[in-house]
Amino acid sequence: MLIAKIYVKLKRDVSDPQGFAVKGALESLGFKGADRVHVGKYFVIELADMSRDAAEVMVRQMCDKLLTNPVIEDYTFTVEQNGGEA
Amino acid sequence: MLIAKIYVKLKRDVSDPQGFAVKGALESLGFKGADRVHVGKYFVIELADMSRDAAEVMVRQMCDKLLTNPVIEDYTFTVEQNGGEA
Repeated sequence: MLIAKIYVKLKRDVSDPQGFAVKGALESLGFKGADRVHVGKYFVIELADMSRDAAEVMVRQMCDKLLTNPVIEDYTFTVEQNGGEA
Repeated sequence: MLIAKIYVKLKRDVSDPQGFAVKGALESLGFKGADRVHVGKYFVIELADMSRDAAEVMVRQMCDKLLTNPVIEDYTFTVEQNGGEA
């Protein structure tokens, strides 16, 4: 079984109010040193048997059509054979 | 500058309705083969100058105290030197 892991975050020049809120909360808890915080999405998709190449093509289409908003978000993904939880 | 990347997802035996919804949406768009979908959070934190060891200790505390709910969520993280966007 293949596991696709997709990491989505806002483009660097897009305002990230959720990130600001988390940064503020970290500071109020006494954590110093977090210069900037970005909050994104993380998808883990278990794929039925198919080749890795086919999986990569499909995952890219999934990202472009549903999982991400390409206007404001960037994504990266990996496709791995089974195991290796993260 | 150090970059911490934190990946949070629900524990495997916790119901993930958002994942079900995404799976349904993928199927309605014609994507076959997504057996299971998990939706999680992804944090990228830019840390001011500190040692990597100190950063790892701090990031773990951030996760335990604010960023994750250890009752229902698992997390992993990496701390890298600068660059290497993901």
